[in-house]
Parts: sequence; structure tokens; C-alpha cells
Amino acid sequence: MECTTVVLDHGYVRLIETWGSDSAIIEAARMSTQKGFQGWGSKQTCLKCGKVVQLPSDDPDSGGCQEKGEHSWDKPVPGDEKLLAYLYKHKHMTPFEMCGAIFEIKAPIFVFREWHRHRTQSYNEMSARYIPLPNENYSPEVHNLVGRSLAAANSANRQAGTQGVVLDLDTALADLLELEDYYQRGQALYNRFLAHGWPKELARLPVPVARYSAMRASANLRNWMQFLELRCAPQAQEEIRLYAKAVFAILELDFPRTMKLFRGNHDS
Amino acid sequence: MECTTVVLDHGYVRLIETWGSDSAIIEAARMSTQKGFQGWGSKQTCLKCGKVVQLPSDDPDSGGCQEKGEHSWDKPVPGDEKLLAYLYKHKHMTPFEMCGAIFEIKAPIFVFREWHRHRTQSYNEMSARYIPLPNENYSPEVHNLVGRSLAAANSANRQAGTQGVVLDLDTALADLLELEDYYQRGQALYNRFLAHGWPKELARLPVPVARYSAMRASANLRNWMQFLELRCAPQAQEEIRLYAKAVFAILELDFPRTMKLFRGNHDS
Amino acid sequence: MECTTVVLDHGYVRLIETWGSDSAIIEAARMSTQKGFQGWGSKQTCLKCGKVVQLPSDDPDSGGCQEKGEHSWDKPVPGDEKLLAYLYKHKHMTPFEMCGAIFEIKAPIFVFREWHRHRTQSYNEMSARYIPLPNENYSPEVHNLVGRSLAAANSANRQAGTQGVVLDLDTALADLLELEDYYQRGQALYNRFLAHGWPKELARLPVPVARYSAMRASANLRNWMQFLELRCAPQAQEEIRLYAKAVFAILELDFPRTMKLFRGNHDS
Amino acid sequence: MECTTVVLDHGYVRLIETWGSDSAIIEAARMSTQKGFQGWGSKQTCLKCGKVVQLPSDDPDSGGCQEKGEHSWDKPVPGDEKLLAYLYKHKHMTPFEMCGAIFEIKAPIFVFREWHRHRTQSYNEMSARYIPLPNENYSPEVHNLVGRSLAAANSANRQAGTQGVVLDLDTALADLLELEDYYQRGQALYNRFLAHGWPKELARLPVPVARYSAMRASANLRNWMQFLELRCAPQAQEEIRLYAKAVFAILELDFPRTMKLFRGNHDS
Repeated sequence: MECTTVVLDHGYVRLIETWGSDSAIIEAARMSTQKGFQGWGSKQTCLKCGKVVQLPSDDPDSGGCQEKGEHSWDKPVPGDEKLLAYLYKHKHMTPFEMCGAIFEIKAPIFVFREWHRHRTQSYNEMSARYIPLPNENYSPEVHNLVGRSLAAANSANRQAGTQGVVLDLDTALADLLELEDYYQRGQALYNRFLAHGWPKELARLPVPVARYSAMRASANLRNWMQFLELRCAPQAQEEIRLYAKAVFAILELDFPRTMKLFRGNHDS
Repeated sequence: MECTTVVLDHGYVRLIETWGSDSAIIEAARMSTQKGFQGWGSKQTCLKCGKVVQLPSDDPDSGGCQEKGEHSWDKPVPGDEKLLAYLYKHKHMTPFEMCGAIFEIKAPIFVFREWHRHRTQSYNEMSARYIPLPNENYSPEVHNLVGRSLAAANSANRQAGTQGVVLDLDTALADLLELEDYYQRGQALYNRFLAHGWPKELARLPVPVARYSAMRASANLRNWMQFLELRCAPQAQEEIRLYAKAVFAILELDFPRTMKLFRGNHDS
Repeated sequence: MECTTVVLDHGYVRLIETWGSDSAIIEAARMSTQKGFQGWGSKQTCLKCGKVVQLPSDDPDSGGCQEKGEHSWDKPVPGDEKLLAYLYKHKHMTPFEMCGAIFEIKAPIFVFREWHRHRTQSYNEMSARYIPLPNENYSPEVHNLVGRSLAAANSANRQAGTQGVVLDLDTALADLLELEDYYQRGQALYNRFLAHGWPKELARLPVPVARYSAMRASANLRNWMQFLELRCAPQAQEEIRLYAKAVFAILELDFPRTMKLFRGNHDS
Repeated sequence: MECTTVVLDHGYVRLIETWGSDSAIIEAARMSTQKGFQGWGSKQTCLKCGKVVQLPSDDPDSGGCQEKGEHSWDKPVPGDEKLLAYLYKHKHMTPFEMCGAIFEIKAPIFVFREWHRHRTQSYNEMSARYIPLPNENYSPEVHNLVGRSLAAANSANRQAGTQGVVLDLDTALADLLELEDYYQRGQALYNRFLAHGWPKELARLPVPVARYSAMRASANLRNWMQFLELRCAPQAQEEIRLYAKAVFAILELDFPRTMKLFRGNHDS
């Protein structure tokens, strides 16, 4: 199944492959006691006839008790969702290393610069030493830019911080035109250098950090959660946060119970 | 597909899951040039009519040349097996991190002690703090024991080294009986300690390093090859070498081209 | 400076070397703003004459204000202890990777089995493939053993758990004698196997997990704190906890401000 | 001791700290046999009187043999340099993890982009989210640029490869002036964006990959050698190779015997 999420003006996150599953985490954790995966969902047993129903899928009232009259249900026994929550809550994270995912990502260089600090991921990236980089550069959307200028001026966030001035819409539009023009001049320079005989590895000097590149990134689920922990956080720069949210949304499809625990931990 | 290999007297290696493939390695490596996977096997083109045949599956002589008479074949162009070999030979190993495998292993503690030195693998092991360990202990097969004593006495291998004495068959048989008796005494002690109220984590003190334990281990293909490099080598202790060979044989099924390169490198 | 702490009946933790310091952590963190280390302790400035005093070492009342009469002290400005606490609290842990320590440790094999799960440490251990292991085995002290049996029976701690029986002192004493006798039998077997010509790597099969071994372990301070986090915790087995506490006490000498933050976090 | 090497037009490599030593590597390796560090240099023993001399520092002929006449020297026994060479040659690399070094580095972003792929190092870098980046950008020296264009045109090196055109000196000079002008325009844009109220994290978009940044990097000696292996190699881009060579030259001061082995391995 192709699963690609568009991010920013030219980027994307595309799932290549996942391995493992929520239940594989339980199986790995149960190596310590050799009990294996027991199943999701609560079970309830009739104290009289011994019938077992699976909650919530089975209807406890369907079919009478074999003994006589109504079933006498014992209290429900939780399934392995309880162990999964326990592992996550108490940070027994090694079983979460038995799952993982590989993505292909297209993003600006300044986003990859932050991304690559995650040293537990495996990377294979496009290289300007081998091929000319495509002429695609990130430009923020004008309302987003103005909104963030306002938010930054009003906040104590030193990372996004401005000089206290708030950008107005007309200035922003003019600045973005200038930025686009600068990008094109950089690209013209890059092309001229190549044509003049500069080695590719030096011709790239004018490439701005806003230039798009592409890579594949692989990590186990524990390390993806570590990545999401930092990069979905409000202090993360919005651009990488959008990539992290795309990663999260894709992981949710294959690891719904684990990612629900992650979300619960980070919403509260 | 269940894939379990019996190793030693009570152990096994069982494949849980693999991810990636030989062609995924090519795809990852081609991120640098954005050219993707081009296919395995050589291709040959007719210089006259432009027909392309895939070698060795297609028959270059089937069907005449559309121009006239016989085809005029250009020299064959190798497929992506050439890039795979290049990556492996020049140790461009990051693309091999885009594949991996998870195994379940049952082995004696002294084997796990060596195994766990591989710090790039993820482990979940059975724990004597949670459940009593099953009473299974490794005993070498008597002819193997005698043979290794002879080999050690004749070699300069300090690791396997003996005091220069060679074990004879009768002594070996007697020693193995004693060893078995000692194992049973250890187990009796363990059980008695548990019955007397020793905490499980202390009752295990008499457990010998020959005792079997079980774990799951996950790693990417680059790291599995690193493991095999050390543990398939002649200097590795025979017991862990048998496990490594079982791992190799299973990896060969899902990564035949990569493991062929590994084998070629280590046979010569 | 030799710094060795005796642990258990035959073990120790010995400091080999540390690198970095509390202030090196600040320097590394300040790479982001290029401001360097500014100093520990609060500073206070006189609003009238501009004199600066360092708290608490300087006496703010010594010497009159050069303007006239008494100093008019501004409120104290905290030193870099504030940044250190901020880094620690908000888990900006990479600056803590700029420090580290190497220890030599002698401990029973079952302790090393838990220790080696910390995959970010570097290890060099004694090997029974090269030299006969010294005949030293861990025996718990009798009152400790009885106390832990009682605690385990009364608690819900499944890890230390017993069958609900509580060990009495006489049984414990008898069991420990038996254990000692078993250790000696294992050692006799080991020696006999060596004398008979068993390879060293097989002669070790009867060695119990209570046997002492020795190693050097190196890690950066971030990873030592990760180790301490798990191994100083109440759920950790008492034996490894004693080693972890010895490591903590030695780290406190060279990284007093960081270890104080660690302690503060784990006492509350 | 301050130890700073200037690299490129605005960069440097500065040693912050090392730990361990050549002899600490031996001590760590000898944990396996518990024999410790025995000393560097060969020793020679007189078969008659038992006198021991240290080679080459002692003079074997000084002082007569206590027995009679001349000494009867046994053949020299090598010191621990033999074990060090054995460890290095047979890739027993864990003892080399017991040493390490921390550097401060100032380099262009495109150099850091390659550097950060070494995931076993610890990094703390300057951040354009916190402070405006200083206006320093890498420009290749003109003769170097022309020389590399020529070399690239004549070689099969696809990484440095040009379109087959060779850069002449006048074009190179003109191109470099254009590049400098482009850098200044990028900087003007950056400053204007900041003045207009752009958040710092977005104002950096025009920053070229030639812009200098600064960081601290820490790794153990095994991992520094891995870094040098790749980055001192002829295929490495010249700019990062100059940094790697500066790192090598500094490591040689504190780990002379190990770095000599490294050099021997990579010169032949």
C-alpha cells in the first residue's frame, strides 16, 4: 500500500515498510515469563457454567447459562492491552525495539540538519556530490509567516524569537518575492559553476539550507517514539513538527495501540 | 512460514520476521542519485534493431533481427548485482541497514554471554527473576568433546587451549556423567531454595552457565553481518558458531544476493 | 587518586578515569549561543556604584559604596547552576555526553548479565576461554537472605517473589552451607576437566552464575545516569543496586553538581 | 595545553580533552587474562647471570656478566607494542573504546552535514534558532579550485566530477567574486528579515551551505579511527579531509602508538 503524505510546499513523507506489530511487542516482553501473546480485549467467565466471552465483541447475554437461568459473570479480566500500557508507562522500552518502520522523506536541508541529530536512525540521502540538486526551495506560506512573527513577538520562546518587531503582510509578501529571487540567483550561480567546470562538490556552495533534499530513514519503534517525543513537541520548529506529525499518523495505522499510548502520554 | 533450526542438545534458532530485501538495499543506495532499482541480471541490446534481452533468462537467438539476418548484440550491461557487489566490497554499509531480521533463540547462558556483547542488537530474554528456569543444561556430545580436546592439544589456539593432555573416550564418558549429576544437584538445590522461601532472584545462584535460556534478538542486516563476521569465524567457540551458522542459513533465504557476497568474502 | 569501593563478599568498583566536568557540560550546551561558561554561584550588583559581589563567598556588606552610604544591591543573578538544572530538568541530555567515566568492576556473573544489557557502555571482561576463572562465588549474607525472604513474602514484587514461604535462620544457614559445598564441587569438576584435557571453553560449563568475573566499563555521563536510573531503583535486584550506588558515590566526587541534580530527581 | 589547528579560510579544530592512553588500551585488553600492562619495548635476558636489559634504552654490553666473561643474551622478548599491533591488526577494537577525545570544530555547514553522519559521536552545535549566525562563508582558494577542476576532468571520480570542462583561472576569479557577492546578498536578506520581524528560525532560509557553524564533538578512539578511515581517504571531499587530518595530527600527540598503527594501515 502506497502511503504518502504531502508536507510543506515540495516535501513528503512516504512509508516504505514497517515490521512487527502491537502484539509482537507483547510476545517479546513475554520472553521473560515465556507466556506469549494472550490476546487483546477483556474476557469474562460465567462462574456457574464456565462459559467465556470476549468483551466487547461477544454479547454476554446471548444464550442462557447451561446450569440454570442467567449467567453469573465473574469480573472482567483485562487482555494484553494492560501489559502494553504497563510497559509503556514504566518505560520498559526494549520490547518496542522489536517493531520499526522505514520512510522516504523529502524535506529542506535545515529540517534534515535537525533530523540527523537522531543518531539511532539509519539514513541514505541524495548527494550533491553525485547529482545536481533539483531546484526546489522552501518558502513559507505568507499567512503562516506573519502569524509566526506575531506569535514570536508575543512569546518568550527564544528559539523562534524576533527582535520584537511584528511582520506585516505587505512586507512579508515583498520579502518572499526577494527570497524567491535570491533562490533563483543561487540556482543560476550553481548552474553556471557546473558549466564552467567547477567540481559538483564545490558548485553546491551557494545552495541555501532551504533547498530540498530526499532520504530514506529507518528506525525501530522505540526510536521513532523518541523522535516524535522531541519533534512533535510545541518547542520544535513548525517545519520539522509537520514531518513528525506525518510520521506519527502513518505509524498509527500499523501500531494503533502503541501510538494511542504515545498520544495519551503527550496530550495530557 | 515457520523456520526453526535445532542447535545443540536443547536449543534452536527460529525466524520471527525479516524486513527489506536485496532490492531495497539498491533503492536505498540509489537515494544519492535518485535512480531507483533498475533490476537484476545483465541486459543485451541489438545494435541493429534495438531489441533488448534479459540474460540469462531470455534466449538471444529466438526471433530474427527486424533489420535483416542475425542480431548484432552489443556487449552485456550488468544489472544492479554490480552495484550491490560494489557497495559490499567498498564497505558502503548504510544501505544494508535498511533490511533486518528478528530471531527467537534458545541457547546456554555462556553462549548468550558472548552474544550480548553485540550492542547493536535488541534483546528480550527470559528472566530467572520472574519464572523458575527450565531444567535444561548443555552437555557436549562425547565424540565432539574428545575431538576438540585433541584439536586443542595440537593447536596453538590459546582460547580453546588445554593443559596439553588429550581426553580419552572413557574419561570423557565418565566426566559427562559427573557433569550431568552435578547439573541435577544444582537443580535440586535451586528447587529446595525456592521451596524454603529464597527469593527467586537469589535461588538462581547455583544455576550453571550451561543452563538454557531463551530470547528474541533483532538487528538490521549490517549488524547481523557484523555478528556473523565474528561468530562464524574459526576462532569463535564452536557452540556460538553453530548458532551463527543457523542465523546465516535463514538470512540466505530472504537476502540471497547479499548473503552470497558475505559468503564469498569469508570463504576466500 | 585510587578510588576503590568494596561491594558484596568478593567484589569491588574502582575508578580508572573520568573526563569532562560540570562546567564542561555548560560549555558544550553554550555552543548553541556561543557564550561559554559564565561561572557558578549568584552575582549581585550595586545599582549605585556598580560593584559586583559573588554570592555566597563575598560579603556584600564589606566596604562601603563608592557613591555614598550603603550599597543598593540589585537582586541576585543566578550563575550557570541555573542552566545546568534547566538542561537536566528538560532532558537536554546531549551536553552530558561530553563527560564520562571508566570503572573496573569485579562482580558475580548474574550481575554482569544484567549490566551488559546497557548497550551504550564499552566493556572488556575477563574470559574463561583464556584463563581459569578464580574460585570466588557469591554467597548472600545470612541475615540479608532471611530479611529479603520476609520482605518478598510480604510484598507484591513478583521479581523477587517467593512461594509465600518465609525462610528461617536455621534453614538459611544450612542452605548456605549446602550452597558453599556445591560451589566447591563445581570447582573440583572444573579443575578435573582441565586436568583431563577438556578445552578451557568447555571446562567452564559447571561454573555457576554466582561466580565472580571482572571487567572495565566505559560510558559517557548521560549513559551512566541512564544506568543509575534503572539500577539504583528499588525494583533493581539488591546486588546490582549496591554496585550502582558505588558508581554513583564515585561520580559524585567529580561531577558534584550534576549528580546532585540526579539525586534530587530520584529522591523525590 | 591549547591545541588549535586552522583549517580552510575561517575554520579550526581545537582539542578540548582526551582520556585514556596507549597503555590503557593494553590494560583493558588484558582484563581477559588479568595480566595488566607489562611495558613497552623489548627485553633481553642473560642466560648465564639472569640480568635483564630494556631495549633499545639500555646498553646490553654495559657491565660484564656476573658469571664469567661476556653475557649470553637470549633473544629479545617484545613488549606490549606487540599486543597493541595484534589487537589492531585482528580488529579486536573494544579496548580502543577505553580512550577518547573531544574537539571543538568550526566548519562550513556542508562539512558538518557529512560529519554528522557519524552517529557514534556526541555533538553540541551552534544554532541559528538561538543566535544570528556570524557572516562567514567558505570560498575555495582560486588555485585549489582550478586544480580540482582539472583533476576532476581527468579522473573517473564521479563524486567530484565536472561536465568535462576545465575551469580557467580568469573564469575562476570572476566566479569567486560572484560567489562572494551572492553571499553578501544572502546575508543582507537575512539581516533584513530579522529586522522585519521574521522569526530567527525562518530568517535563516537563505543561509548557504557554505556558511560556517561551530560545534563540539566527542567520541571514543575506536570511533575516531572509524571517522578518520572514511574522511582521510582519497575519495573524501578535500574540505572534510583537511579537518580529518587535523584531528589525526592532534590524536597522534596523545595516542602515538595507536595512531602509528592506523597510519601504517592506511599508507600501505
